[in-house]
Amino acid sequence: MVFKFEILKKDPKSRARAGKLYTSHGVINTPAFMPVGTQGTVKSVTPLQLKELGAEIMLSNTYHLFLRPGHELIKKFGGIHKFISWDKPMLTDSGGFQIFSLGGLRKLTDEGATFTSHIDGKKHLLTPERIMEIELAIGADIIMALDECAPYPCEKKQARVAVERTTKWARRCKDSFNKLQPDAKRVGSSTLFGIVQGSVYPDLRKRSAEELVEIGFDGYGIGGLSVGEPRSVIGEMLDAQVPILPEGAPKHLMGVGYPEDILEAVKHGIDLFDCVIPTRIARHGTFLSKQGRQAVKNARFTQQTSPLEPGCDCYACKNFSAGYIRHLLMASEILAITLLSIHNLRFMMTLMAQIRSAILEESREF
Amino acid sequence: MVFKFEILKKDPKSRARAGKLYTSHGVINTPAFMPVGTQGTVKSVTPLQLKELGAEIMLSNTYHLFLRPGHELIKKFGGIHKFISWDKPMLTDSGGFQIFSLGGLRKLTDEGATFTSHIDGKKHLLTPERIMEIELAIGADIIMALDECAPYPCEKKQARVAVERTTKWARRCKDSFNKLQPDAKRVGSSTLFGIVQGSVYPDLRKRSAEELVEIGFDGYGIGGLSVGEPRSVIGEMLDAQVPILPEGAPKHLMGVGYPEDILEAVKHGIDLFDCVIPTRIARHGTFLSKQGRQAVKNARFTQQTSPLEPGCDCYACKNFSAGYIRHLLMASEILAITLLSIHNLRFMMTLMAQIRSAILEESREF
Repeated sequence: MVFKFEILKKDPKSRARAGKLYTSHGVINTPAFMPVGTQGTVKSVTPLQLKELGAEIMLSNTYHLFLRPGHELIKKFGGIHKFISWDKPMLTDSGGFQIFSLGGLRKLTDEGATFTSHIDGKKHLLTPERIMEIELAIGADIIMALDECAPYPCEKKQARVAVERTTKWARRCKDSFNKLQPDAKRVGSSTLFGIVQGSVYPDLRKRSAEELVEIGFDGYGIGGLSVGEPRSVIGEMLDAQVPILPEGAPKHLMGVGYPEDILEAVKHGIDLFDCVIPTRIARHGTFLSKQGRQAVKNARFTQQTSPLEPGCDCYACKNFSAGYIRHLLMASEILAITLLSIHNLRFMMTLMAQIRSAILEESREF
Repeated sequence: MVFKFEILKKDPKSRARAGKLYTSHGVINTPAFMPVGTQGTVKSVTPLQLKELGAEIMLSNTYHLFLRPGHELIKKFGGIHKFISWDKPMLTDSGGFQIFSLGGLRKLTDEGATFTSHIDGKKHLLTPERIMEIELAIGADIIMALDECAPYPCEKKQARVAVERTTKWARRCKDSFNKLQPDAKRVGSSTLFGIVQGSVYPDLRKRSAEELVEIGFDGYGIGGLSVGEPRSVIGEMLDAQVPILPEGAPKHLMGVGYPEDILEAVKHGIDLFDCVIPTRIARHGTFLSKQGRQAVKNARFTQQTSPLEPGCDCYACKNFSAGYIRHLLMASEILAITLLSIHNLRFMMTLMAQIRSAILEESREF
């Protein structure tokens, strides 16, 4: 199966839509949340547990995989799916956001990004062409063009430079992608998404979207949001960009995240989300629930014989009490982290399933 | 089902035997290896993974569970099986070995052991009576009497004092056990094993065994071995003790361990083993194989697309390459530890299954 996006239903009162994203490694029901496996594993869970909790796609970070174990090694092992034993869809980001996060350790020019590895201090230059080579060697189903993510706050002038560079890099990525993978309609081939930027400036957001659409991609990442700006800004920026992007193209709001942000973004027409929050907060002993985030260390869980969230159908809630998981955490047992990660990811899967049902059945207002 | 031990086959050339140990929570095929779940979890694996890799019984440490989360809390949750979500047989040790390991932090008198908690520095006195109360509250299928484990090396005089105290404590444990659990034949009740000691002195080993047999237990732990003495001593001590213990009683060589020691001990009539080695070395990146222990960090695994041990049927070997597991370890991913733990435990399960087959089918010499 080659890449295809099908919109099954549109919400009459918002831009929300439910659809199906077809890839060589299976179908993703959208809107979807993608668990993040930075280094080729979603932290603390096995691929089997990830599948069992309902994940249909996983995101991995090109920057991290490039540095360790290296894209050539992954290619030698038959690509990322075989390397990590995940036979469902995969998406790799472009590394743009990670390079941006390096702060003083990186330098951006029109040519590309020069940075110092956080692992061994080696210098690297990543150009758009090189990123395409790396991502295609890794071999995810969806790969992203290299972008420049502006910081927050950011002067308009700097934000404009980032938009202009992002457009130039996107064009070079597409050219390089077409050369490296001329048989893009082959089963097992990768699909390229462009990334739009523009910081918190609606006119720059519009311009970035227009320029990327002119180049033309099969899907679009919306980058540079959730980097410190007030929450309310996200909706405004999506309003500026989403109507410009082709309706039939899947849209990925990169790095978002929180259940409340996801609900809002779905209404603005977003189909894909990714965020490290569910597994990161698990490692800090926190779990997601309908009552918000809760710390398992809280003494009130000591004697709780019921699960973390009664009614939840995850492996952790079906088999263990909150009291036991608290004990594991107090005793620094890894199992605590695994169980909390499973619960938090399942919480996100359930949330997305409810959102999809609401759209498909028009059962709830968006 | 109440406690029963059935010997299915005896090896004609040694004391080795294959049998079945029946408990309220299921049957254990012996000789068996018991994964250790010190704090109520076998480190880094879920109970489901533990079951899938073939574990039929798990050992937990009374000392640790008493200190955290406390036996009363476990009782409140319905006992250890419910608390940790493990519906198969459980064994708890008596805490004697852990208290012994505290060194200067503990003081032993005939009354019991006074020690300082390694968690919060609180002082505790554990008497044989108190240990029975604690173990019965935890509620494992097999519980052990309190013993005094002599260090190695140990003067004969000191070893004799430890044997004498172990006998006195064993008697008090049995009396207390009978009082606390008068309906010992009830389904779900616990079975009490005595522990024999004697350091490296054959005559003390004999004396200890004779005295414990006189008190009478449903099974026997053999303690105080594998604490630093030369390996060759183990066989000699088993030769002194095993013939004195009732043939029909299951015998547990406590804290042993290494595949080669297990093979030797089975020939001396041992039925049960436990050791933290498989999961501990996993946390250090080491795996068990027919070629001995190997460090996954070794550069030769970098490009290995085949599993850790080709032919192994564990989840790690069936799904992942050694190269990927090495990557996970280099990247400090918890999944590396989980996969190595699963492999190492499965290695022990396979070893024990081969030992049982060899005895049952007389297919190999012991």
